[in-house]
Amino acid sequence: MKVVYVSYPPSDAAGRDVPASADNALGLQEFLTERGHELVTTTDTGAGLDEELSDAEVLITTPFWPVYLDADRLSKASNLELVITAGVGSDHTDPETAKQHGVTVAEVTGSNVVSVAEHNVLQILALVRNFVPAHTDAREGGWDVAGVAGASHDLEGKTVGIVGLGAIGARTALRLKGFDVRMLYYANHRRSPADEETLGVRYARLDTLVRESDVVCLALPLMEGSQALFGPERLAAMKPGSWLVNTARGAIVDRDALVEALGSGHLAGYAGDTWYPQPAPADHPWRSLPEGSEAMTIHCSGMTLEAQDRIAEGVREMLDAHLDGRRVPDDFLVVDPAA
Amino acid sequence: MKVVYVSYPPSDAAGRDVPASADNALGLQEFLTERGHELVTTTDTGAGLDEELSDAEVLITTPFWPVYLDADRLSKASNLELVITAGVGSDHTDPETAKQHGVTVAEVTGSNVVSVAEHNVLQILALVRNFVPAHTDAREGGWDVAGVAGASHDLEGKTVGIVGLGAIGARTALRLKGFDVRMLYYANHRRSPADEETLGVRYARLDTLVRESDVVCLALPLMEGSQALFGPERLAAMKPGSWLVNTARGAIVDRDALVEALGSGHLAGYAGDTWYPQPAPADHPWRSLPEGSEAMTIHCSGMTLEAQDRIAEGVREMLDAHLDGRRVPDDFLVVDPAA
Repeated sequence: MKVVYVSYPPSDAAGRDVPASADNALGLQEFLTERGHELVTTTDTGAGLDEELSDAEVLITTPFWPVYLDADRLSKASNLELVITAGVGSDHTDPETAKQHGVTVAEVTGSNVVSVAEHNVLQILALVRNFVPAHTDAREGGWDVAGVAGASHDLEGKTVGIVGLGAIGARTALRLKGFDVRMLYYANHRRSPADEETLGVRYARLDTLVRESDVVCLALPLMEGSQALFGPERLAAMKPGSWLVNTARGAIVDRDALVEALGSGHLAGYAGDTWYPQPAPADHPWRSLPEGSEAMTIHCSGMTLEAQDRIAEGVREMLDAHLDGRRVPDDFLVVDPAA
Repeated sequence: MKVVYVSYPPSDAAGRDVPASADNALGLQEFLTERGHELVTTTDTGAGLDEELSDAEVLITTPFWPVYLDADRLSKASNLELVITAGVGSDHTDPETAKQHGVTVAEVTGSNVVSVAEHNVLQILALVRNFVPAHTDAREGGWDVAGVAGASHDLEGKTVGIVGLGAIGARTALRLKGFDVRMLYYANHRRSPADEETLGVRYARLDTLVRESDVVCLALPLMEGSQALFGPERLAAMKPGSWLVNTARGAIVDRDALVEALGSGHLAGYAGDTWYPQPAPADHPWRSLPEGSEAMTIHCSGMTLEAQDRIAEGVREMLDAHLDGRRVPDDFLVVDPAA
């Protein structure tokens, strides 16, 4: 059996081995060769990858350095049976096409939900408290307290709206609960009173949430209904001077409408960890948002070293099942062509 | 009566009026002139200030742009009766000397404890999750996920040690409680079981806390016993690869020993909001700590716009009392020469 692992390249900047980078491949090299299988690792997501996929049975990809799998690519990968997302969020694979090609898609459900929830709180605080200019001033020799303080707020007392209250949204709420904020949420179905009480959240329709929130935090998957969900109109409906945090997926926010909402000053700031496409091109306009209006990161919220260990464990569990001719564990399944 | 207000200069970078900057002076100009008193505002903390203080009755200063009040300066300010810290932390005034000169020292107790507690959580997350390099990469066109992820951790499961469990330390604990961390604290006296349970903290001696904590967070005042409390030996006793956060006072940490602990890699990172002296000189070595090992800010944690409003209210309350010949409210008193 041939397995192809596609991920980001190693880095001189990393202080230590990074399990999920292409060179380390989650420690799967030994795991697979011991069992008599072949592992090919690459950072190539273009034509070179197509060639490797032509006789591969399993593809492992990540949301952080994704392989975009469409009909064209899948039709060239005739042996492909299983696509594993080493992480959470498999929107780089078109589910209908995968099903038509008889390809199972699975991800390591839950592997990095805490990591992303922590990143949400970090990016909310970074925006609201105006961290980036304060840090830049510290590095550059300044002491412009007024310049920093003039756009620095307490989170206390603010309204935070969480869009999507799944594994990540709920854990974000639990972490924000100690901050004395008012929390609204919108989700496809309203949660139980006990859940709402435990998380400290109140249900609102999306329009209400957007209108009333000082901070909007996106915690929903990318799917047909969420593509550009925050376009020109919805961004205009946000509170003047409010902040938007997006660790979910870049394509949920309209790229150019966001640039305009920040440029006009209607929004006070945007902190995104996710981009579209990924890797983000060097000239992606979100890289040069107005100074003091952003706290962007490259897609790394779900890639802490602890998350990588959990991802590695989940991927091994899936490969074990596949090699034994068993189904991938149900909670990992995203597309099941047999269903 | 002459009141002198010393603070940081206004800034073009501020998006709006900054109440506490020297030009706005917490809105005290109207308040005092209406009552027939004189307000002088300045950013000068040198010889020009000495001259203004020679006939002033009240001095208002801030920890963010402090007037260092020693015997020499106080002896030249013979009319001075009241020194108000527009904020929290009056260590820029020598308490014994103030008492000898019959000068009352007071601060706006509680005005920014939430603001600083929020900053603690922000700076902890920024260090542990390796935010600064992730942000720099986003701005500079890179996509070095391995480089960022190789030093990025979850806070979950880590041990956080809080040194000092006063108004700020306790509020920091309450905000960290949702993060599934183990929390230790050291304080002059152990808190009640109910307090410990509510905050989710366990008492430890300082040596134990320092040895066992992945993150040490300083939340104690600067006083004789805390001056350079984190010197070469204590920094060496910290866990290899641990992080130190200091929104308390810069002088609690030995300047050069810290530079060495980060340079050697013994500590993974330092996030300080406070410096010594302040404003920090442009060549202060903490401004050029190794890249990826810091999340410094200029002293702004207690200067959010909401904190400034509370500070303004407290300062007016004190001036009101003083003008009426009443004592400053007890909970604001730091040095009471009549005591």
